[in-house]
Amino acid sequence: MLIKINKEVLDMNVKGNAIVAQSGGMTAAINATLAGVYEKAAASEQIGTVFGALHGIEGIINDNLIEMNLTAEEVELLKITPGGYLGSCRYKLPDPASEKGKEVYDKILDTFKKNDVRYFFYIGGNDSMDTANKVSNYMAEHGHEIFTVGLPKTIDNDLPVTDHTPGFGSAAKYIATSCSEIYLDAKSFDIPYVTIVEVMGRNAGWLTAAAGLVKERYDSPDLIYLPEMPFDLEQFFVDLENVRKNKPVAIVVISEGIKTPEGKYFAELAGDLTSDNFGHKNLGGAGALLASHVKSRLPCKVRAVELSLLQRCAGHFVSATDINESFSIGGAGVEAALAGKSGIMMIYECEREPVYKMNISYCAISDVANVEKKIPREWINKEGNFPTQECNDYIRPLIQGEIHPTMENGLPKYLFRE
Amino acid sequence: MLIKINKEVLDMNVKGNAIVAQSGGMTAAINATLAGVYEKAAASEQIGTVFGALHGIEGIINDNLIEMNLTAEEVELLKITPGGYLGSCRYKLPDPASEKGKEVYDKILDTFKKNDVRYFFYIGGNDSMDTANKVSNYMAEHGHEIFTVGLPKTIDNDLPVTDHTPGFGSAAKYIATSCSEIYLDAKSFDIPYVTIVEVMGRNAGWLTAAAGLVKERYDSPDLIYLPEMPFDLEQFFVDLENVRKNKPVAIVVISEGIKTPEGKYFAELAGDLTSDNFGHKNLGGAGALLASHVKSRLPCKVRAVELSLLQRCAGHFVSATDINESFSIGGAGVEAALAGKSGIMMIYECEREPVYKMNISYCAISDVANVEKKIPREWINKEGNFPTQECNDYIRPLIQGEIHPTMENGLPKYLFRE
Repeated sequence: MLIKINKEVLDMNVKGNAIVAQSGGMTAAINATLAGVYEKAAASEQIGTVFGALHGIEGIINDNLIEMNLTAEEVELLKITPGGYLGSCRYKLPDPASEKGKEVYDKILDTFKKNDVRYFFYIGGNDSMDTANKVSNYMAEHGHEIFTVGLPKTIDNDLPVTDHTPGFGSAAKYIATSCSEIYLDAKSFDIPYVTIVEVMGRNAGWLTAAAGLVKERYDSPDLIYLPEMPFDLEQFFVDLENVRKNKPVAIVVISEGIKTPEGKYFAELAGDLTSDNFGHKNLGGAGALLASHVKSRLPCKVRAVELSLLQRCAGHFVSATDINESFSIGGAGVEAALAGKSGIMMIYECEREPVYKMNISYCAISDVANVEKKIPREWINKEGNFPTQECNDYIRPLIQGEIHPTMENGLPKYLFRE
Repeated sequence: MLIKINKEVLDMNVKGNAIVAQSGGMTAAINATLAGVYEKAAASEQIGTVFGALHGIEGIINDNLIEMNLTAEEVELLKITPGGYLGSCRYKLPDPASEKGKEVYDKILDTFKKNDVRYFFYIGGNDSMDTANKVSNYMAEHGHEIFTVGLPKTIDNDLPVTDHTPGFGSAAKYIATSCSEIYLDAKSFDIPYVTIVEVMGRNAGWLTAAAGLVKERYDSPDLIYLPEMPFDLEQFFVDLENVRKNKPVAIVVISEGIKTPEGKYFAELAGDLTSDNFGHKNLGGAGALLASHVKSRLPCKVRAVELSLLQRCAGHFVSATDINESFSIGGAGVEAALAGKSGIMMIYECEREPVYKMNISYCAISDVANVEKKIPREWINKEGNFPTQECNDYIRPLIQGEIHPTMENGLPKYLFRE
């Protein structure tokens, strides 16, 4: 690990302002981390103003900042408000060596200098960590040293080094709960019936595997297909017919990112997929496609349920463990910066035996940027169609506890900017 | 109203057993009504055994009954358990005058006689009320008079006479909440972005209209298309471009049952739809189809979210008003039967001013069977693309209050039969 300890801060308390920003796909917990950063930064004597950059790095490039001033009540509301309170972006920074790149990085430098910013907190996933790292390095090379701390965020749980990611537990809880409810609905009917549930997660199966927890209580789901294993359509039909031998109602959970044995996204077989600025294909549709195959081959009722955005924004049913941890990691990130750390990403280190314990630590951002953490092969059964007990044991502690939203007129009350 | 008052019961307390059954599409509140029937029936001295027929009328035809014996704790769990605890069916009774019909009705008669059943409670929607009515008449004509009480149930809220239906409030609460969360997620991005949310409800727009409650707090949704109004694709694009003039992120909520000006289901334009035993087309897919139109014509990110099964089975986030009323109407149905009423369906009569008040009454089943209640034209704006304040005022009281599920290991604990 290459952690920079900024000498300056060891000699004296560096005073300056802070910028916090959010980036990438949203989660139900990303604002909890923002709340944690805000609360700790606002309370610090070293930090003057806490600026929020609107829409991630774009807000910094364009000097589009707001001064954050939240009441204690607003901080509480913010903790379980889904979406990005400050807005997000999927902007890919150009190469700093290019002409366009120099222009962009200089605008960032200007924003930092102009607003006397010495602390930079970036909440995001792999791509965002790469962004934070580049910005941090450029600032240092150009004589405006800042304390840069990355704060992980992704429902996909695909960041390395950290035990898990903020946002994963709430999405996993929602997914497992919804899958149990879908099962109770479907099993009401005593007819040949196949339900296919599509879960997010891109190339990592963590979210999809969360449906495995349902099996600890119900005879469902029957099959779970993860992107870590090649998805063979003919083998799927063999697996499915094995299930249907014994029961009329089958529940199949698949990841949006399952790939054919040839390595092509299964969803892509329905047509070309668009891509975002980082070159990631916009997945979704694998469930509907698989359902159409089942419909054309089996005489049964078929339904595809895509959990879609719902799984990443269900603030009405979050994991208390996730929200509390996400809040804590924000505050810990501020403490680390104030202690002179920079170029780091905060991480969770966890024990699960005899009881679940989480400790916050950190690693070099460069250890994280652009690396995907996937489910190890030994946490998937031999047949490649279900996660193992070890996988359940890993996920279970992360979905524990509830935080019920403040309600207003029958709907959750969230904090948002107009 | 043609309510039968069974004279027999006026002279003496008719003793016998009861059958309760569930039918049609599931809701998050259908088991609350079952719990209400069970609790009241089990406590009655006139009723001996409370039988549950498995999978609706099919369980009665096939004498597939269970004796219900629930603890007080189980009754509480049952109240917010989604799906049908006893199982459901979509079986259409044949014409009693036909040979097949005589056979089926005689099997029903046998089950009632064999099990000494004098009380019959059928929880279902329009089609189910028709079934209950036919069964009730046939039994009377064949000398085995039973007290038949229909208990309404449908998330669609499309039953006439009753102010609203059990199950609607919970689904409406989930839909409005999810739409507010989807908005907060989508508005995080400062890019041209259209999200299309598809809601159930068949030919009635009540559930879709529930998304209108979101607008009381947020600048969303922008457009709501109900099946009560013809859906013109070209006019939709005019409406959408009007929205997009002022903001990058647009949220459009549509009913699964929107129809073209020619009266064809919009979803059908993507291909033939299958039908159930009552000849109702299996809807779903209108949102995906509309999204593909937007994608092909506008340079923006497009996402379709189909709330699908989730909106009718989200036991983790029910309306307390709905659950409590659904429980009460079950008990009231038993009381009515014990008082000698038959051939009736229990209904809600409500006042909304100065405060919401609900009173349980009843009507003749024949007033309800096979009639659909839709949103009146004056509760939809002139442009036909949003419900009015009157519509909000009608729905709002029905989504009030929460009942948090009992949790076990991070997931809601529901009551189910293996």
